[in-house]
Amino acid sequence: MKRYGSLIKIKPKKLEEYKKIHADIWPDVARMITKCNIKNYSIYHKDGFLFSYFEYIGEDFKSDMAKMAADPITQKWWDICMPMQEPLETRKEGEWWAEMEEVFHQD
Amino acid sequence: MKRYGSLIKIKPKKLEEYKKIHADIWPDVARMITKCNIKNYSIYHKDGFLFSYFEYIGEDFKSDMAKMAADPITQKWWDICMPMQEPLETRKEGEWWAEMEEVFHQD
Repeated sequence: MKRYGSLIKIKPKKLEEYKKIHADIWPDVARMITKCNIKNYSIYHKDGFLFSYFEYIGEDFKSDMAKMAADPITQKWWDICMPMQEPLETRKEGEWWAEMEEVFHQD
Repeated sequence: MKRYGSLIKIKPKKLEEYKKIHADIWPDVARMITKCNIKNYSIYHKDGFLFSYFEYIGEDFKSDMAKMAADPITQKWWDICMPMQEPLETRKEGEWWAEMEEVFHQD
């Protein structure tokens, strides 16, 4: 299992809408997350920042992420979510959510 | 079980030192974390922000946090860590790390 922490900004005017749709995520999007081996997935908000934490239990993260990105319903979901977000300038090439560095872990 | 996400800033000049001591946390501090019912505890860094995620498996979070705060070795550890950190202006009264709002969760 590998843990991932990621960071992105949310447009202040879009926060309530973002919370609302995430309180009632489309079942097909939720199922695709599970199918792509992501577990224990949380998103937190504070001061315009969204932090995501999840645990990846598969064998090939890149390939699972490609599978998710190729799913038409997930694409429609992202078409709604992404304009609400503002990615960090400092993210790596190809990233939307910027991957964070794990500086501590204790089971 | 209750999940907690929290946010704080790290002084840029102190990041390397913070990472170094957290790569080799004092065993007594680690044990106290476990004794206070905290599990699956991670800290991530990006752009001067530290995000922490952990799972609380006890019955009385406030009382466990008071127990941790009363532990002399934990206090010494905090005396080293806290000057490296810069709490958010927007934190609630009594907070050091600012608690974030969970906007999404999927098991």
